[in-house]
Amino acid sequence: MSSDVLKVIEENKEMYIRWLVDFCKIPSVAAQGRGMDEAVRYVEELFSKELKTSSERLETGGYPVVFSEMPGASDGTVSFYNHYDVQPEDPVDLWETPAFEPNVRNGKLYARGVADNKGNLIARMAAVHALQQVNKQLPMNVKFIFEGEEEIGSVHLPDLVDKYSEKLSSDGCVWEFGYRDPDGTVQLSLGVKGMLYVELEATGATTDLHSANASIIENPVWRLVWALNTLKDERERVLIPGFYDDIQEITESEVELLESYRLDEKATLETLGLDRFLLDLKGKELKHKHIFEPTCNICGIDGGYTGEGSKTVLPAKAKAKIDFRLVPGQDPKKILNALREHLDQHGFEDITIHEWSSEVAARSKPEETLVQAMTSVTEKVSGKAPNIVPNTPGTGPMHVLCQALGIPSASFGVGNATSNNHAPNENIGIDDYIDGIKMAAMLIEEFSVRLSEEKSMVR
Amino acid sequence: MSSDVLKVIEENKEMYIRWLVDFCKIPSVAAQGRGMDEAVRYVEELFSKELKTSSERLETGGYPVVFSEMPGASDGTVSFYNHYDVQPEDPVDLWETPAFEPNVRNGKLYARGVADNKGNLIARMAAVHALQQVNKQLPMNVKFIFEGEEEIGSVHLPDLVDKYSEKLSSDGCVWEFGYRDPDGTVQLSLGVKGMLYVELEATGATTDLHSANASIIENPVWRLVWALNTLKDERERVLIPGFYDDIQEITESEVELLESYRLDEKATLETLGLDRFLLDLKGKELKHKHIFEPTCNICGIDGGYTGEGSKTVLPAKAKAKIDFRLVPGQDPKKILNALREHLDQHGFEDITIHEWSSEVAARSKPEETLVQAMTSVTEKVSGKAPNIVPNTPGTGPMHVLCQALGIPSASFGVGNATSNNHAPNENIGIDDYIDGIKMAAMLIEEFSVRLSEEKSMVR
Repeated sequence: MSSDVLKVIEENKEMYIRWLVDFCKIPSVAAQGRGMDEAVRYVEELFSKELKTSSERLETGGYPVVFSEMPGASDGTVSFYNHYDVQPEDPVDLWETPAFEPNVRNGKLYARGVADNKGNLIARMAAVHALQQVNKQLPMNVKFIFEGEEEIGSVHLPDLVDKYSEKLSSDGCVWEFGYRDPDGTVQLSLGVKGMLYVELEATGATTDLHSANASIIENPVWRLVWALNTLKDERERVLIPGFYDDIQEITESEVELLESYRLDEKATLETLGLDRFLLDLKGKELKHKHIFEPTCNICGIDGGYTGEGSKTVLPAKAKAKIDFRLVPGQDPKKILNALREHLDQHGFEDITIHEWSSEVAARSKPEETLVQAMTSVTEKVSGKAPNIVPNTPGTGPMHVLCQALGIPSASFGVGNATSNNHAPNENIGIDDYIDGIKMAAMLIEEFSVRLSEEKSMVR
Repeated sequence: MSSDVLKVIEENKEMYIRWLVDFCKIPSVAAQGRGMDEAVRYVEELFSKELKTSSERLETGGYPVVFSEMPGASDGTVSFYNHYDVQPEDPVDLWETPAFEPNVRNGKLYARGVADNKGNLIARMAAVHALQQVNKQLPMNVKFIFEGEEEIGSVHLPDLVDKYSEKLSSDGCVWEFGYRDPDGTVQLSLGVKGMLYVELEATGATTDLHSANASIIENPVWRLVWALNTLKDERERVLIPGFYDDIQEITESEVELLESYRLDEKATLETLGLDRFLLDLKGKELKHKHIFEPTCNICGIDGGYTGEGSKTVLPAKAKAKIDFRLVPGQDPKKILNALREHLDQHGFEDITIHEWSSEVAARSKPEETLVQAMTSVTEKVSGKAPNIVPNTPGTGPMHVLCQALGIPSASFGVGNATSNNHAPNENIGIDDYIDGIKMAAMLIEEFSVRLSEEKSMVR
């Protein structure tokens, strides 16, 4: 059965590539409101014309979620979460070919959104198309959940999930992203970090003053610097009381997973143009910090005169944007409260906090049937075991859509080690794309078999 | 004799106002290289056509110093330091009438540069013109030193002083600025603070990274925050070893001067839109801090994403501009070295320091003949004793041009408490302008008399 679908995929290769190329021509930049309706219609047409199935728009108040549900031969349900929106293409000058004119060079397809996330979205639709050519009915129920606001923080997703929790339920959700290591090994991620994104602001006089006044007028930049200094020490320890208290204990299987997870230190440093990691970390400690520990990162800081040369001003205000990447167990709301209390305790009642966004961390167990099935098909398609990471250090709305509904989730996909997500010259390998279709198709077969076996064992 | 010159000034009032209005039409913004040659020629023509005297351009490598020396009846020499360059007019929108179209409203003349420093420059030339109408020969030698780069840091002045120290020498120098208190009392300033302006920079990866990397890659904004935090504590104490060591002891007469110096706390806070001073300082402590203590002020800080909303980046670099306002005794070079050593000692060898500018502080003794003469003529013209400040909290190249050459200096002028220097709607009162001419004229008379008396006593 597997060999049949692989054959179909090979036969339809050119068409599947065309589907993706045409999709990548649509500049569906949610942040700028460009091409969004066109992208929705493109996906809807693929569903109706190629997959011969219906889809519906779930209205969110923002850009709609395109949802489709296709019945299968067995009871189990697999869902695919993807997004049809992409990042803006800036800086435009650094693209070798225009961002929205997909171009193939050296076996790679270059276009904005091709890795994040159109390649995965189309690969998964192509997988279903290929399975349909083998058997009229799919091996199991398949749901597609295609969001249009992932790149702008999935702002409407929590409300949507509240409303449609039944419709969105499944036995396992394949998450949107996925990459390969520099040596070509497929990465399999079992979760994402959470997030609390805040902006701190200190204010002084109503306008920037002559800095001769610095002797008698408070400087909000100094206030901010002193306040920030109380948040984290030079050993990278976050100093907000209770910050680490609720972190979920790492299980034995997660420890094992981390041990077997490979992080190519040399390649990573080379890509970043650096010669050392934070605190000179290496090996196990480095991996532990990267995967299992939360962060407190200053994304930006700003106050007073920041142009060329010197200008003697006493700034009127100063602000800092901070993202905390959280790990399972940490509650963004609780941490926001703890941050406020901490600042007050240190005499920084004057510093305001604006919350920009928050996300709860998510991590599925390696024992989950979905994970076992994804591991197995990765081996079959790529020829070697995946490099499994307990969670990626990045963030996404996985918890709200999956774990909060009791759905296990994991992620693999068509990206590579230098896919340049959110950056110029975003790309995927054509072969990786075809493998991505194969992995998705085989997963639908394998997951249905494993779920059925499990159920029969329970009986 | 005094009454004669005052009469001449009243008679020529309209002409002297016209001189200033015409001068203010020239947009001599040194920072933008606009109207500089026109301003030089305007001043040169006033010298030749109205004061019937020659002037010379002292080439600096940048904009020239316009210099003129006029012989007098006595041995003594008074010099006037002013500048013909002005600040840019931004933000243009906030001007009620265009910056370079001088406009009179409610007894005030509005124009960029009218207070800083064209009003004082022209008033002092008008004073000499008026004296010339009374007596063919001036009471004493008068030198005019008109710089064109004050607003861009007087970058070429130190070299010029080295070259022309003889030519620039005098028995006392009247400095460029001067203001009145909110109640109309003339301020008399005996000095300026010094300055060390530096920019600190911390760098990380070659480009901003996805902030998911914050767990394992150093963040230069954090480095900068931690480094800055070591420079000054929340009690405003600068923590650089040796920073306070060389500060010149305050003399008894300076302490007395500070006690009699009036700082209108309420009006100052109202103007700044604040309800308290730094550390809740008041009275004597406030004045002491403002006048006698150095500062460490962050003029600007910048790093990472500072636009609207949230963006999850790990910044590639961060920088802070800092100005230290120094007091007599402090050596900017020594403090720069101490800063470097301090950062190294705290493990911040990676943070670079760029020096933008430095100035040594200057303070003349209240006992100086020049100060006595200025005090006396202020009383005569304004009807009450000046509000004398040992030094203003601002900075200027006073030390290099005066104290380094053994020349005492002090400052009074035509500005008021809301002259809006460096800001929109810069203005001076017409009456204050005329008084400024009178004070300058009477000073030339009075200073010559006092110097002659002193000399005869010494003999």
